[in-house]
Amino acid sequence: MEMNDIKLKKRIAVDMDGVLADVYEQFFRLDEIKTGTRKTLESVTGVLELEAFQFGRDHVLSDDFFRTAPVMKDSQQILEQLHQQYEVFIVSSATEFPKSLSEKQAWLGEHFPFISWKQMVFCGSKAIIQADIMIDDHFKNLDYFTGQTILFSQPHNALADAGKHRRVSTWKEIEKLLL
Amino acid sequence: MEMNDIKLKKRIAVDMDGVLADVYEQFFRLDEIKTGTRKTLESVTGVLELEAFQFGRDHVLSDDFFRTAPVMKDSQQILEQLHQQYEVFIVSSATEFPKSLSEKQAWLGEHFPFISWKQMVFCGSKAIIQADIMIDDHFKNLDYFTGQTILFSQPHNALADAGKHRRVSTWKEIEKLLL
Repeated sequence: MEMNDIKLKKRIAVDMDGVLADVYEQFFRLDEIKTGTRKTLESVTGVLELEAFQFGRDHVLSDDFFRTAPVMKDSQQILEQLHQQYEVFIVSSATEFPKSLSEKQAWLGEHFPFISWKQMVFCGSKAIIQADIMIDDHFKNLDYFTGQTILFSQPHNALADAGKHRRVSTWKEIEKLLL
Repeated sequence: MEMNDIKLKKRIAVDMDGVLADVYEQFFRLDEIKTGTRKTLESVTGVLELEAFQFGRDHVLSDDFFRTAPVMKDSQQILEQLHQQYEVFIVSSATEFPKSLSEKQAWLGEHFPFISWKQMVFCGSKAIIQADIMIDDHFKNLDYFTGQTILFSQPHNALADAGKHRRVSTWKEIEKLLL
């Protein structure tokens, strides 16, 4: 019974950075501490994070960058509802920064306690992921995915044509789309 | 050119524990340190590791359990050859033991340096993995996989009928099968 139930549920692969975790706010904050000035949103729009923030790589490699990232607005409540109706997996590119692995798992445990360890995937390439729906802020992940693709707006992708992907800017839009 | 090349390669998902990493030898060794007696192979055959080794869960949770696991015989050389001909991903159930994540990545870096971070997947359930071939020692991972399945013999699965899976006992057999 439960097994049939699981099989009938559509599977969603949800990205962390730039979808659940507000990494831009981390970059803005740390960059301001380092330089004394807060960058404008305009100045970082249309380029990848590590190009937009001069010290971005140092920040990503520093302790607690991922552990203390702010949570994206409305994501907790809406992901919990998705978790009731879908088979949710959190799929995060993490192995490029090995220290991030345990930080990301602890962060999920704190902010999304309904997500069990069975639903977590920390990888490099997402080409190996099989799901019905993918929510991600990077074209490199969405472009090769064969299911339904939802592009979460972030400054780095804001100027690009979403193409075949459905662009959303807030979790409230995901709620309308999927719930 | 390179892209076509990549797409033509079959993708293999290779498990770590019990396939690349000789976790049984770790259990035997730590159990002997704890109890003063080395268990016989017969006494642990046909039951899962954490049932066979009374202090197994303590060992798994202890520092360096995964970091210092011995490498399975012939796996380094043969996996490197597979890596030339296939698109290899290392897919390891790891999120149940969060501390294992960084240990496993460091272990792969030491013993399988040709495997890049892009080819690593640390997950809970492997239901989300999409590949052509899976090499694993657990039925729970192979049974729901839709591609070709290779069951790597380990004491816990030794008494079971391999069913639809192809059983191999050594990396030399994998070499014959796939190279």
